[in-house]
Amino acid sequence: MKLLEERIRKDGTVKTGNVLKVDNFLNHQMDISLFVEMAKEWKRLFADRPINKILTIEASGIGIASVVGIEFGVPVVFAKKAQSINLDGVSYVTQVQSFTHNRIYDVIVSKKYLSADDHILIIDDFLANGCAVNGLIDIIQSAGATIEGVGIAIEKGFQDGGKLIREKGIRVESLAIVESMDAATGEITFREQPQQN
Amino acid sequence: MKLLEERIRKDGTVKTGNVLKVDNFLNHQMDISLFVEMAKEWKRLFADRPINKILTIEASGIGIASVVGIEFGVPVVFAKKAQSINLDGVSYVTQVQSFTHNRIYDVIVSKKYLSADDHILIIDDFLANGCAVNGLIDIIQSAGATIEGVGIAIEKGFQDGGKLIREKGIRVESLAIVESMDAATGEITFREQPQQN
Repeated sequence: MKLLEERIRKDGTVKTGNVLKVDNFLNHQMDISLFVEMAKEWKRLFADRPINKILTIEASGIGIASVVGIEFGVPVVFAKKAQSINLDGVSYVTQVQSFTHNRIYDVIVSKKYLSADDHILIIDDFLANGCAVNGLIDIIQSAGATIEGVGIAIEKGFQDGGKLIREKGIRVESLAIVESMDAATGEITFREQPQQN
Repeated sequence: MKLLEERIRKDGTVKTGNVLKVDNFLNHQMDISLFVEMAKEWKRLFADRPINKILTIEASGIGIASVVGIEFGVPVVFAKKAQSINLDGVSYVTQVQSFTHNRIYDVIVSKKYLSADDHILIIDDFLANGCAVNGLIDIIQSAGATIEGVGIAIEKGFQDGGKLIREKGIRVESLAIVESMDAATGEITFREQPQQN
C-alpha cells in the first residue's frame, strides 16, 4: 500500500538490531485516519471472504483491529497476554515468545468468543518471526474456527514469519513488506506488491 | 447513555468483590458498532471543547479510544504499562496501582506525543478508584497540556475515583454510572444522568 510505504519512509526510523520505529503513527501515537485507509484496503483485498470476526492481540494490534471492525461491520476480539482475575478460566491458551520484550508469555482468548462457526481475519501491526500470529492461529485452530486470512500493517520480509505462514496455505496481506533496511543510512526497501493500492 | 445501560443489564455479569464482567462487548470481545454510538455521544457532550488528541491506556482503553479518534478526527495516543526496548527513554512516567491485577506498574508516554499545545480528552473503559485516569492526568500535567475532559464507558459510582476527579474541576462524562450492584441477585442500579442520551 503506497500510502503506508510513504508514511514509513517519512516518519519511520531504522534502529540497529532490525528495529523499525513507527511509534509516531502506528503503535504509540496512532494516526486513525491512516488506519481507516488501511482498513479499506484490507476490505478490498479480502472482499471474497465471509469474515464475521476480527482477532488481534494486545496491545498495539487493538487500535488497528478496531478500525478494521468498523470497515467490516463485525466484532473484534483481542487476545490477552496474561491471566487476569477478571477472566473465567475457561479459555484457549497458547505460548508466544516476544521479540520486543525478550520473554515468553501466555496468550489467552475466552472460549465464549471463538467457535467452529467463526470465520476469522487476524489483524496485527507487525509480522517478523511470526510468533504472535502463530499463537493466534493456534488458538483459532483449537476453537475449530476458520482462518480467512491475516492482515498485517508492516511485515519484515527479511525474517521468515510471513513465508512460513503463507506456506501453511494461509493468505497474508501485509500492507508494507520491508525487504531490507539500513540503520546507518536510514534507507528502507519495500517488496513490490502489484495487487495492492 | 441508555443504550450502554441496557447492554450492561443484558450482557454484564456481577461477580463478588465488586467485579462487573462486560468482556463480551467491552473489553475482550468488542462490539465496535456500540463503540461508534458511544463515540457519537462523547462528541455531542464535548462539542464545545477544542480537543486535538485522545489519550488512553493499554490495553482495554485502546479499542474505544480508536473509535473516538475517528469521531473527533484526531490522533490517539495510548500510554504504555511497561518500559519497552522500542521506546526512546525520553518519556513522561508515572506509577499506577492496578485493582484488577493487584500490583503497581509504570505508565509511560513519549514526550514527543504530548506538548503544551495539546487539548486532551482522556478515554478509558472503566473508572473505579481512578488510579489509571489519575496517572494519565499526572502525565498530561507534566507535559503542560490542557485536560479538556474524561470520557469513561462504565464508572463504579460507589467507589470514589469519579468524585475525586470531578472535585479537581475536571469534567468527567461516564456513559453509565453504576450506583450499586448485587452479586447475589445480579441487580444493577444506574445513576440518573439527565443531560445524556
